[in-house]
Amino acid sequence: MNYKALGRILGKIMILEGGLMLAPLIVGLIYKEPIMNIVGFIIPIVALVGIGFLLQIPKPKRTSLYQKEGFALVAMVWIVMALFGALPFVISNDIEGFTYVDACFEIMSGFTTTGASVIADITQVSHSLLFWRSFSHWIGGMGILVFVLIFIPESNDGSSMHLLRAESPGPQVGKIASKMKVTARILYLIYLCLTVLEVIVLVCGPLIDYEMAAAAGHIVSENDKFFHALLTAFGSAGTGGFGFIPNSMEYFTPFAQYTISIFLLIFGCNFALYYLILLGKIKEVFKSEEFRCYLIVIVTAVAIVFISLMTQYQQYGAAEAFRHTLFQVSSIMTTTGYTTANFDLWPQLAKTVLILLMFGGAMAGSTAGGIKLSRIVIAMKGTMVNIRKLINPRYVPKTKFEGKSLAEKTTNDVFAFITLYLFIILGSVLLLSFDPVNANEGHGFFSNFSASLACISNIGPGFEAVGPYLSYASYNPFSKIILTFVMLMGRLEILPVLILFTPKTWKKV
Amino acid sequence: MNYKALGRILGKIMILEGGLMLAPLIVGLIYKEPIMNIVGFIIPIVALVGIGFLLQIPKPKRTSLYQKEGFALVAMVWIVMALFGALPFVISNDIEGFTYVDACFEIMSGFTTTGASVIADITQVSHSLLFWRSFSHWIGGMGILVFVLIFIPESNDGSSMHLLRAESPGPQVGKIASKMKVTARILYLIYLCLTVLEVIVLVCGPLIDYEMAAAAGHIVSENDKFFHALLTAFGSAGTGGFGFIPNSMEYFTPFAQYTISIFLLIFGCNFALYYLILLGKIKEVFKSEEFRCYLIVIVTAVAIVFISLMTQYQQYGAAEAFRHTLFQVSSIMTTTGYTTANFDLWPQLAKTVLILLMFGGAMAGSTAGGIKLSRIVIAMKGTMVNIRKLINPRYVPKTKFEGKSLAEKTTNDVFAFITLYLFIILGSVLLLSFDPVNANEGHGFFSNFSASLACISNIGPGFEAVGPYLSYASYNPFSKIILTFVMLMGRLEILPVLILFTPKTWKKV
Repeated sequence: MNYKALGRILGKIMILEGGLMLAPLIVGLIYKEPIMNIVGFIIPIVALVGIGFLLQIPKPKRTSLYQKEGFALVAMVWIVMALFGALPFVISNDIEGFTYVDACFEIMSGFTTTGASVIADITQVSHSLLFWRSFSHWIGGMGILVFVLIFIPESNDGSSMHLLRAESPGPQVGKIASKMKVTARILYLIYLCLTVLEVIVLVCGPLIDYEMAAAAGHIVSENDKFFHALLTAFGSAGTGGFGFIPNSMEYFTPFAQYTISIFLLIFGCNFALYYLILLGKIKEVFKSEEFRCYLIVIVTAVAIVFISLMTQYQQYGAAEAFRHTLFQVSSIMTTTGYTTANFDLWPQLAKTVLILLMFGGAMAGSTAGGIKLSRIVIAMKGTMVNIRKLINPRYVPKTKFEGKSLAEKTTNDVFAFITLYLFIILGSVLLLSFDPVNANEGHGFFSNFSASLACISNIGPGFEAVGPYLSYASYNPFSKIILTFVMLMGRLEILPVLILFTPKTWKKV
Repeated sequence: MNYKALGRILGKIMILEGGLMLAPLIVGLIYKEPIMNIVGFIIPIVALVGIGFLLQIPKPKRTSLYQKEGFALVAMVWIVMALFGALPFVISNDIEGFTYVDACFEIMSGFTTTGASVIADITQVSHSLLFWRSFSHWIGGMGILVFVLIFIPESNDGSSMHLLRAESPGPQVGKIASKMKVTARILYLIYLCLTVLEVIVLVCGPLIDYEMAAAAGHIVSENDKFFHALLTAFGSAGTGGFGFIPNSMEYFTPFAQYTISIFLLIFGCNFALYYLILLGKIKEVFKSEEFRCYLIVIVTAVAIVFISLMTQYQQYGAAEAFRHTLFQVSSIMTTTGYTTANFDLWPQLAKTVLILLMFGGAMAGSTAGGIKLSRIVIAMKGTMVNIRKLINPRYVPKTKFEGKSLAEKTTNDVFAFITLYLFIILGSVLLLSFDPVNANEGHGFFSNFSASLACISNIGPGFEAVGPYLSYASYNPFSKIILTFVMLMGRLEILPVLILFTPKTWKKV
């Protein structure tokens, strides 16, 4: 292991995190928050920057990274970021009874863009912390290492490729430009522009129905409109989903809800498609099989959920039902987890469609989590190939995906990934069932199953005990630690985390 | 497609099924049942034997079968057997409101050794039909085509191997003897002897606590002791699980419950192990990785469920808790589905362990369903190999399974199988959620999920609406048809059914 080189990159990222934490610190100063809130950011900033610089001192003999080092580093970076990012929650002492485990869960949920929260009452939380939570979605959405790639010098030995492979979602990693650094810049630029665009649209229209919120007993300040628009955009861009006023987006205006739905679907697309649009190759966008599949799934899911709500649920008019349907399908499919309604009360058909969307997720190369549509398509094509081979043993597969012939290795990796995904969900369900709360009525199988699924797919809300209007606060610390790792495994697509904890990784080859 | 050769084998099996149906017919005569019950068997027997002989007339030019023909034939045979095997239920009109769809579900559940029932009140059913249901477990357990292999002349072109591969559970098919016919004979002989042994043990001890049953309002005749022992043995040998008195095995004596538990575990073992024992190679039995894994899983599951019951559930004393634990773990793990207690009321931890056992199943080469332990072991080893390859790209896997080096193709097939298993469960859950009953409280996600899982793994009882003390009667006909196919896919390990319904199978190569 090239510890010195790993340390240097880790250090750079720690300095970066320290720098990013200045943003919530400034928010705290603007809102004139109590001193402990400010200190809560200053301490980790000093620690991060200090340790970060110390890690720059040892000069590595070799600057390149092996593949295993890349994978282990990515997992390590994310854990370190969460360990420090959690500090402001504990130091500020904003939230009653909030432990360090809670804080780690919360910020890991932020960075991994899960949006599962252990804060039972969101109104207790200060502006600076709310900002930090949602900002962490934005940071984690595109990937922190991708961001660092913009700044570190690029070598030709594939080191940066190893990092990008380990952090980027999807079965294949495509370079947009010939250099990784340029690719990373383009991705972040698109990401930034779309986020700014969403903020502008949200600020220009009516955002929150303040009277409706007040009628429900929740006072939401109209002065915070820009702040709320910003947090909304962070959460949608990273497909994270942390709420910042009670009941997530229930009190948002229909205009805002439609706007968010559309932006969620935009952020669920592979960012390479936007690059194609910038290059004027719009036809090629529609040639993408995964994109067409994405559209088909959205339309089908909206249709089924809408029909289910109209025929089996008497609460909504047609317009309202359509709005909630579109919002919830967009939110779940892009693994965001914003909610406009308590979908746990919806009919079984509508709920089942949402659960299935939780497995699938959106497109590879987006900020969304889940198995990814491309993997599902590849698995289905792979199954067809297997059947054809049984029908005719001399059959030579000519199956294509996205215009390229589908390599057997890709298919096998996808099958292996989905199997591992299932095993981790089932393992998590088993570990959660040790929670003594489970002995009572609290956490049934469906709660634990949906919690595990919502965490590995980086969605956030599940069903029953972890339903959209509830939080993960009812789990015990052990369960919270399990789910924290499940979220991380979901975001990094499992293997980097397993590699980090495999002893062989740390042995000399 | 070699229709004439397929027809001949199908015909032979139809004649065989007709012959097997003589057994319940005789039971009906012994118990002097109403004329329609007798006619209910005579009509299908005549039809089966008649059509079976007609199918023998066309002489095929080629007697050998291609692989695809073997797979399609196996799926076809099972469907035809269910279509005819269902007739006695409808003709006898024993059960109020029992439709042909219900009857097909019931007998498919029998042949596939699932044991899921749509009969809400078992006391309505005559002896002959009870016998036929449980006998169908025994027939389906070892496989009907394996049985036929004993009688048809063996060619050297691999035709019989194709059939055995399509019908036998597990990732690999091992020949015990050099000839398939001999292998099939040995398997059936072991199967028969073990079944007879179980009947003898059950008859010699106290079987049912008649007073306990009477106290619960269920009159069970003491004269039927041999009949009940026989049915119990059929259900355990095939790991089927149809009950024949109310509440499955709740009223069975502790002696009988322990006996059944042990026999279930015996029938969950790979039958090749018994052949090794017969040859005196007992050491080799313990060399089997899958067998050791089987023992470990049983001990672990019993330990966890027992502790969960003792600490989180105040209903049982230690002895009683252990008995129910051992019975339920054996029953679920071998995918039988007999029950001695309503485990749906057990604590979440105990329930979760049972659910995970539902995925795994017992050993390959046994009569049990599920994914099979060997596949789980192979998937885990395959994952380890994948991680090792990422850690060291030059790593050459030397992984072994059961003493032989694990081929990459085997691992990939296992991953593909588990992925397909998951997809079918999720697809089934979606289709079941269209059942309008779901709009009400009836069938929640957990009901539909456990129903799909219990059917594909050939277990029978699930949780909530399909819990151990309830039946599948509440599903609508569409859902019943779906589950009928899910059971069949589970028994034949998916691919033969998919091949039967793939248009390419029927085109000329």
